[in-house]
Amino acid sequence: MLPTPKKYFITAGCSEGKSRLTAFDNALLKARIGNINLMRVSSILPPGAEYDPELKIPYGSLVPTAYGYIMSDVPGEKIAAAVGIGLSADSFGVIMEFSGRCSCEEAYKSIENMLKEAFETRGMELVDMRIEAVEHVVELVGCCLAAVPLWY
Amino acid sequence: MLPTPKKYFITAGCSEGKSRLTAFDNALLKARIGNINLMRVSSILPPGAEYDPELKIPYGSLVPTAYGYIMSDVPGEKIAAAVGIGLSADSFGVIMEFSGRCSCEEAYKSIENMLKEAFETRGMELVDMRIEAVEHVVELVGCCLAAVPLWY
Amino acid sequence: MLPTPKKYFITAGCSEGKSRLTAFDNALLKARIGNINLMRVSSILPPGAEYDPELKIPYGSLVPTAYGYIMSDVPGEKIAAAVGIGLSADSFGVIMEFSGRCSCEEAYKSIENMLKEAFETRGMELVDMRIEAVEHVVELVGCCLAAVPLWY
Repeated sequence: MLPTPKKYFITAGCSEGKSRLTAFDNALLKARIGNINLMRVSSILPPGAEYDPELKIPYGSLVPTAYGYIMSDVPGEKIAAAVGIGLSADSFGVIMEFSGRCSCEEAYKSIENMLKEAFETRGMELVDMRIEAVEHVVELVGCCLAAVPLWY
Repeated sequence: MLPTPKKYFITAGCSEGKSRLTAFDNALLKARIGNINLMRVSSILPPGAEYDPELKIPYGSLVPTAYGYIMSDVPGEKIAAAVGIGLSADSFGVIMEFSGRCSCEEAYKSIENMLKEAFETRGMELVDMRIEAVEHVVELVGCCLAAVPLWY
Repeated sequence: MLPTPKKYFITAGCSEGKSRLTAFDNALLKARIGNINLMRVSSILPPGAEYDPELKIPYGSLVPTAYGYIMSDVPGEKIAAAVGIGLSADSFGVIMEFSGRCSCEEAYKSIENMLKEAFETRGMELVDMRIEAVEHVVELVGCCLAAVPLWY
């Protein structure tokens, strides 16, 4: 089997770029995850995974990551992305992502609501939340992204 | 290299949620794959992989999965998702996913046609198909999903 | 951790199909990556990874792959996909994908510009580029895809 991740952190970034994909690439760099290979996952924090905001991941590594993002080429448009982790007392956690044409606060609030719903549905107690949200007003081509990289 | 999966099952589920992502999360829970990390793959059943409908996968595991899904926030709309595996006599299989604003039967039929085409194109004989399809009439925000998780 | 890939190649293909997903499947077959499990990654060539155009990958393998694609069911429409790798002298490389309703040349040019921007942003010197681009005029349902599979 593929090894289950043991560590995680939470990050977010926004950027302009000359194209949609380079705006995305630049937002990844702002979030300090631009030089690794994100492999997108849906969205469980493994039991016992440890929060490590100082993680250094080697270039080109395959990194399972839950993330949300939005790109826009409408100058003046406000865009936002957020990600959150709902933590249980002694089991797994749940990760939720959100992105939209809205403010940081709305993105943050959406994540809160989604985490509450996710724990309610599972009949689990939500003991803590870590949320990160960013917003950006598009100049030419912009991207906001928020991510929870999982690592070892 | 990453280890090639050796087992698989097939599942599907539909659900409502308060948001698009929680409807998706709830559909995953209905399909009994809500507490693992799906890593989306395109779409080959490895040679010799064994069907195991009783697979228990630990929380937070990284699970290569072929899946299709659809979300809708149009009350009254019928949505459907299907997934199918085409099996050969002694080689790999092919997995096809489908989702749309249609009935379960149409989704099922689409999968059949796609599997036939996939085997025809490869010049392989299609000896059996396993297909699972679900449909849902949206109340507020709904999601249908069908998946083939691959495991070890 | 997941093992970091050590080899790569670059490929592209276009095809018709009876449906969108089988057009995609057929394009993968044309690109000689139709019988493996692509796991999409964003988009770094690991340091020291070796170019190996003769790579044979076993059926059903999990293959981290950066790719771009486009499907269209508008008969007569020209579609294109391209992928490129920007190489540094002694560190990692950057992979960019592009797809659109345009010609091969435009797709190629977009990749060039994105790679230049990616290296500029990182303050790295771009010493070489490998780019592959394809185009297709849709008959019924068409797909163009370009990919950089990473392997071991």
